[in-house]
Amino acid sequence: MTKGTKERIVETTERLFRRQGFNGTGLKQIVAEANAPFGSLYHFFPGGKVQLGAEVIRSAGLMYANLVTGVFDAAPDMVQGIRDSFDGAAAVLRATDYEDACPIETVALEVASTNETLRSACADVFESWIDEATRRFAAAGIPKKKSRELAVFVIAALEGAFVLARGMHDARHVEVVGELVANTVSDAMRQTRRVKNLTRPRTRR
Amino acid sequence: MTKGTKERIVETTERLFRRQGFNGTGLKQIVAEANAPFGSLYHFFPGGKVQLGAEVIRSAGLMYANLVTGVFDAAPDMVQGIRDSFDGAAAVLRATDYEDACPIETVALEVASTNETLRSACADVFESWIDEATRRFAAAGIPKKKSRELAVFVIAALEGAFVLARGMHDARHVEVVGELVANTVSDAMRQTRRVKNLTRPRTRR
Repeated sequence: MTKGTKERIVETTERLFRRQGFNGTGLKQIVAEANAPFGSLYHFFPGGKVQLGAEVIRSAGLMYANLVTGVFDAAPDMVQGIRDSFDGAAAVLRATDYEDACPIETVALEVASTNETLRSACADVFESWIDEATRRFAAAGIPKKKSRELAVFVIAALEGAFVLARGMHDARHVEVVGELVANTVSDAMRQTRRVKNLTRPRTRR
Repeated sequence: MTKGTKERIVETTERLFRRQGFNGTGLKQIVAEANAPFGSLYHFFPGGKVQLGAEVIRSAGLMYANLVTGVFDAAPDMVQGIRDSFDGAAAVLRATDYEDACPIETVALEVASTNETLRSACADVFESWIDEATRRFAAAGIPKKKSRELAVFVIAALEGAFVLARGMHDARHVEVVGELVANTVSDAMRQTRRVKNLTRPRTRR
């Protein structure tokens, strides 16, 4: 079965946003590449480009979270999960000629000071990613506050590595940053274990 | 003396790029806000928006490098310089309602896959920042290869922290990331000193 028109519009827009951002993507290009009649866009998205943009941000955010979650689920521990995520992202960048990185990053920067509806959608996506990473660090035994700090750090480092890698067409930056991020997380894990050992009540003899 | 027309056009464009990116900034808005006749833009920049954009990227990149260099020059060591840079960047974000972060980041992502002239200008700026940070880490005694890795890491972390802070309107992200980056650099410094102590030839008695 072929995909529905709405689904094609959303997927095409998501792909165009990655490559050329929100302001660089016109509605005419979207309907042309989605092979959809122009009127269908306003049928499915009466609020036009902003409504479509918000839906694309949310669905791309969820898709990307599922992708990264899958990498962590397959890894033996958080530290290896981080290495695999960064190395996997570098491989995707190379394979797509530096087009395919975080699906909402360019848009997030474009709208941060110019469109509150779209900024809010980006903020919700980032918050959901931070929540999920925080939960995983906490499940690995790291205290809640430290887990959230690490979550922000890991996601920021990945986003920033994408900026350098895409801007400089050099995916090694993502691998280098990933290795240093993995070391930080490894240290936090080790520290947690040490504190636990020190504070564990001794068994009476 | 009032600023020259060309200077006003470059400064206005730089300010508009920070807030709304390359594609979101029109030439009409630039000349209007720079209080310049429309014809003057093509007089100074015969190559139009791309030539103007490339000059803005390079001048903004140099200006930002000088700003951060000043912070490091004023700090007692690299670790405190990193803390001061991130904390200062967070303060500027708060003071400017999350508009004023890295001057070329939004543009770098917008043009990474769409305009080679502008991407190349961004790449040159990033490379100059990485070179300068590498030089400083190496001057602090860290081996060259490790110095460059740390330079990429620090700049990526700052760029990524800006994405989260601007997208979520929360400058604490920049402070949190800065603290973890400072720890990584502190560890690298300590490790360098340890290796130096171990490999220092013993004086004969």
